[in-house]
Amino acid sequence: MHIGLVARLDMQKSIKLAKKIVEFLEKKGIQVSVESSLADIINKKDIKCDLEKMEADMIVTIGGDGTILRTQGIAKNIPIFGINMGTIGFLTEIDHQNAFEALEKVISGKYFIEERSRLEVCGKKLPPALNEVVVITSKPAKMLHFEVLVDDEVVENLRADGMIVSTPSGSTAYSMSAGGPIVDPNVDAFIIVPICPFKLSARPLVVPDNSKIKIKLLKKGKDAIVVVDGQAEDKITYMEELTLKKYKSPAYFVRLKKGFYRRIREKLTEGGIAFL
Amino acid sequence: MHIGLVARLDMQKSIKLAKKIVEFLEKKGIQVSVESSLADIINKKDIKCDLEKMEADMIVTIGGDGTILRTQGIAKNIPIFGINMGTIGFLTEIDHQNAFEALEKVISGKYFIEERSRLEVCGKKLPPALNEVVVITSKPAKMLHFEVLVDDEVVENLRADGMIVSTPSGSTAYSMSAGGPIVDPNVDAFIIVPICPFKLSARPLVVPDNSKIKIKLLKKGKDAIVVVDGQAEDKITYMEELTLKKYKSPAYFVRLKKGFYRRIREKLTEGGIAFL
Amino acid sequence: MHIGLVARLDMQKSIKLAKKIVEFLEKKGIQVSVESSLADIINKKDIKCDLEKMEADMIVTIGGDGTILRTQGIAKNIPIFGINMGTIGFLTEIDHQNAFEALEKVISGKYFIEERSRLEVCGKKLPPALNEVVVITSKPAKMLHFEVLVDDEVVENLRADGMIVSTPSGSTAYSMSAGGPIVDPNVDAFIIVPICPFKLSARPLVVPDNSKIKIKLLKKGKDAIVVVDGQAEDKITYMEELTLKKYKSPAYFVRLKKGFYRRIREKLTEGGIAFL
Amino acid sequence: MHIGLVARLDMQKSIKLAKKIVEFLEKKGIQVSVESSLADIINKKDIKCDLEKMEADMIVTIGGDGTILRTQGIAKNIPIFGINMGTIGFLTEIDHQNAFEALEKVISGKYFIEERSRLEVCGKKLPPALNEVVVITSKPAKMLHFEVLVDDEVVENLRADGMIVSTPSGSTAYSMSAGGPIVDPNVDAFIIVPICPFKLSARPLVVPDNSKIKIKLLKKGKDAIVVVDGQAEDKITYMEELTLKKYKSPAYFVRLKKGFYRRIREKLTEGGIAFL
Repeated sequence: MHIGLVARLDMQKSIKLAKKIVEFLEKKGIQVSVESSLADIINKKDIKCDLEKMEADMIVTIGGDGTILRTQGIAKNIPIFGINMGTIGFLTEIDHQNAFEALEKVISGKYFIEERSRLEVCGKKLPPALNEVVVITSKPAKMLHFEVLVDDEVVENLRADGMIVSTPSGSTAYSMSAGGPIVDPNVDAFIIVPICPFKLSARPLVVPDNSKIKIKLLKKGKDAIVVVDGQAEDKITYMEELTLKKYKSPAYFVRLKKGFYRRIREKLTEGGIAFL
Repeated sequence: MHIGLVARLDMQKSIKLAKKIVEFLEKKGIQVSVESSLADIINKKDIKCDLEKMEADMIVTIGGDGTILRTQGIAKNIPIFGINMGTIGFLTEIDHQNAFEALEKVISGKYFIEERSRLEVCGKKLPPALNEVVVITSKPAKMLHFEVLVDDEVVENLRADGMIVSTPSGSTAYSMSAGGPIVDPNVDAFIIVPICPFKLSARPLVVPDNSKIKIKLLKKGKDAIVVVDGQAEDKITYMEELTLKKYKSPAYFVRLKKGFYRRIREKLTEGGIAFL
Repeated sequence: MHIGLVARLDMQKSIKLAKKIVEFLEKKGIQVSVESSLADIINKKDIKCDLEKMEADMIVTIGGDGTILRTQGIAKNIPIFGINMGTIGFLTEIDHQNAFEALEKVISGKYFIEERSRLEVCGKKLPPALNEVVVITSKPAKMLHFEVLVDDEVVENLRADGMIVSTPSGSTAYSMSAGGPIVDPNVDAFIIVPICPFKLSARPLVVPDNSKIKIKLLKKGKDAIVVVDGQAEDKITYMEELTLKKYKSPAYFVRLKKGFYRRIREKLTEGGIAFL
Repeated sequence: MHIGLVARLDMQKSIKLAKKIVEFLEKKGIQVSVESSLADIINKKDIKCDLEKMEADMIVTIGGDGTILRTQGIAKNIPIFGINMGTIGFLTEIDHQNAFEALEKVISGKYFIEERSRLEVCGKKLPPALNEVVVITSKPAKMLHFEVLVDDEVVENLRADGMIVSTPSGSTAYSMSAGGPIVDPNVDAFIIVPICPFKLSARPLVVPDNSKIKIKLLKKGKDAIVVVDGQAEDKITYMEELTLKKYKSPAYFVRLKKGFYRRIREKLTEGGIAFL
C-alpha cells in the first residue's frame, strides 16, 4: 500500500497531525509520499512529492473541504480520505479525533470507494469542479445579464448577480445558500441556480448530467469571473459562452460508513448551519 | 391504426370537439374507440369502450392536465396525445385550435413517443402517480408530524401540513407551488418537498428514482389522507408507513415537437402563472 | 392583586402545576380565580369563574401557545402571563421549572406589559386573531382562486391552497412555514402570505396595520374555511369577501425580560425548528 | 414655479427629450435650471446649475431608477418627478411617451407629494440610501462572517456573501432578488436580508424604522465594501461596525396617481421580471 499525504498549512494542528500520521504509517511499513510544501515543513524531504505527480493508492487529506477540493483538482484520479480538522467538512470522512482508529480500518481494507461526479469548464485552463462552477459579477452588487442553454435550448434569460452550476456534491455548498435543493449524489444530475435573480419566476433547475450547459453573458461592458470550487478563477468577457459538461472522470473517496443523509444531517447541525 | 378518445365532460366545447374528431378520424378510415360516458353523450354507442379495457394504439385526450392524469391512471399503457382546451396543460401536446392539423401529422406517423416515470403507492389501491403523491392533513391548517426515509435511512423528521413526493413531470405542478425545483424529465429522480414545514432548515430533496421512499406519520390521533395526482385519495392512519417507489411502467406520450424547456416556458407564461 | 388561572387540561403536569400555583398564590393572600373546567378538575369550585367573565389583573396560563391563543380570544383584555409546559411557546414568558421564582417577581411588581396587535375578521362570529387568519381550501390538496385587496386596491390574483394574513406575533408561526419574513412586533404591519401559490411571482407582502385587507374567493363551487389562530373556524362561500382589519384592542402580555430576538432565537433552537 | 432638470447622459433619447422639455417649460414661462453636465451637452449654459446647489420646486429626472437614486443622493430635499426612458423604473412616475401631458398636469398643480424613507450609514461619507445599503464581500464568491444587531441586541450571526438593509422602496429591488418580502412604503420599517446565507435557518427580518441596525464583520482578513443604492461605495474593514439608521429627511416624489400595488404590478410585468 502506498499512501499520499496533504494538509492545510495554515493550521498548526493539521501539520502536527500530519507528522504523527507519517510516523504511524511508516511504522506499519506502508509507503508514504508527502506533498512537497508539507514535506518541507515537517522535514520529510526524502519522501516528498509534487501533488500532480503523486502515484499513491489513496491520498489522506488533513483539513476541511477546501483541502479536499484543492487536492482533487490537482492530483491524478486517486481516492481521497479526508480527515476533518474542525471546519465544515461535507466531503471529509472522519474527525481528527478518530484519525488513527480510522486509518487502521483503511489499512486493513475495511473501506469502500465512492464516486462523485465533476464538472468541466470547456476550453478554459481550470481544474474540474467537484462542487460547483460559478459565473459571477466581478463588481460586487452589480447585476449581469445571463442566458442559460441546456443542449442548445434556451432555458433561462435573466439578470442576476451570478449563476451557479453545481454537482450533487455541491448541493450542500454554495448552491444551497442560493436556494438550490439538496441532491443525492446518486442522482445523475447537475443543478443550475441563479444568485439573486432579478426575476420573480426564476427557479432552481435540475438537469441530466449528460447535458451540455451553456452560460452566456449578454450585456456589454460588464466584467465577470468564473470560479471553480471557490478556488481557481478566470475572467470571462461579454458575449463569451461558457460551456460546462460532466468531467471525464469522477472524484474518488475512501469511505468507512454509508449514509449520505446521516452525513449531511451531522454536518449541518455540527457546523451550526442549521441555527446559531 | 386504432385511436381511443377521452374528453372532459363538464365542458361543452370539449364534447363538441370530440364529436368532430370522431367524424374526422372515421372519414380517414381509422378505427376509433370512444370512452363509455363520452360515447353516450355524443351518441356513438357502437364504438363505445370502457377506458380500462381500451386497446388502441394511442388515446387522444381532450381537456387539460386533469384529463390526462385521470386517463393515464386508468388506461393500459397506451400513449396519450393531449389536446388542450384552454386550461393549464403542461402535459398536453397541442392547443385545440391546432387539433386537426396536428392529428394529420400524427396519422402520417410524424411523431415520437416520450416516456415519463411514475410513482407507485405500495399496498394501496391507488393508481400510479404521473405528477405526485401527497400526504396531507385532512384537517386544513393543522400540522402533521412526519418522518421521511430513503432506502430505510432517516432523511427528515419534521412537522408540516403535508409531504409531496413528485416525479419530474410533477415538478411544475404542486411541488413547484411548495417551493420545489424544476426537474428535467430526463433526470432519473424523484423530489421530496414538505408543505409549509414548521422547521427552518427543511429543504426540497432530490433522490434517485430507484429509491424506496417511506413517509411515516408520527403523531397519534391526527388524520391524514394520501392524494394521487390531485384525484384519487385514501386515508392513512397514525404510525402507518407509506412506501413509494417507481412504478413498473412509465406513462407514454405522443409528441410532435421536442423541447421540455420551451414547453414549460410557454405554459408558465400562457397560464399566467408567472405573473397576473 | 387578583390573578386568574387557565391550564391545558389534556396534560397531567399542567393540572398539577395549576394546583400548586393556586396554593402558592392563596398562601400569599392573593385573590385567585380559576377557569371553570380547570376548577372542577382541581376541586376549587369556590373560586371558579368562566373565562369570558373573569375580572383579574392578569391571567396565568399553563400550557403552550395554544393555551394562550385560546385564552386571549375569550377573556376580556387582561394581561396574560404564560408558563410554558415544554411545547413550542413563542408567546409564553417562562418555562415551568422557573414558575414560582417568576411568579414572585410578578407579585412584587417587577414586570412590564407588552402589547401585541390583533386581527379582526369583520362580520364573522370569530375571536380576534393574535397570530393569524387563514383562508384555506376545505378539500386538502385542491387549490382555490383568490383575489387580495388592500384598501380596495387589487394586490394579488392567484391560485393557491390558502392565504395567510398574519400579525407580527404570527410571523414565527404559520406564516413562517409558508415562507413569510420574521417581523418585529414593534412594526405596525400585517403580513399577507400565500400557501403553496401556483404562481411563480407570488411573494410575501407586508402592509400597514391600518389597512383594510380583503380576501375574495373567485372560483365557483370550491369550499373554503377561515381559521383563526389554528383554533376557531367558519365556512366561507364562493364570491364571499372576507374583510380583515386591526382589532380595536391589542392583547396584553406580562413580561419579565426584554428581547424579542433573544426569545425567538431560544424558541427556534429549543423547539428543534431550526434542525432536527 | 422653478423646475430643475437632470438626465441620463449615456442615452441619446434622454438628452433629446431633456432639450424639448426645457423649450416646453420656458415657453410656459417657467424658470428652469439644468444640471451642469447636461446643460453643457444641450447648450443651455445660461441656466446651468450644479445639482447639489439646485434650489428648484421640483426636479424632473429623465432616465430610470438609477438617475433618480443618484439625484436624490446629491440634491437638496427637492421633490423628484421621474420620467422613465424604458428601463426598469419602480421610482419613476410616467413613461417618456406621456411626458408632456404629465408635465401639463404637474404645472397646473394636479399632483401630490409622496415621502419615502431613507437610510443613513453613520460615520461614513456616503449619501443617504433610498433603496438599500449592502455590505458585501469584495472578493466575489467568498463568504463573509456577519453579526447583525438591532438596538444592540444580537439578531443574527451567519456566514453569507453579503447583507442587505433595505427601505420599503428598496423592497422591489436588490432585497427582492435576495428573497425579501415586498413592503408597502407606508410601513415604517426596514428589511434585513442576507445574500446567499450559508445557514438554513436564516430568514428575512422586518424591523421598525426607528431601530439602530449594526452590521459587524467578524472574520479577520476578509475585505468587504458597503454599497449605497448600487452606486456610491466605501471599504469596510475587519471588526468594523457599520451603524445604519433612518435618515433625518425622506426623499420626496411628485406623484400623479395613487396606487403602490398597481405601480409594482405594472413594473414587474413590463420589466419582464415576472417571466421571460
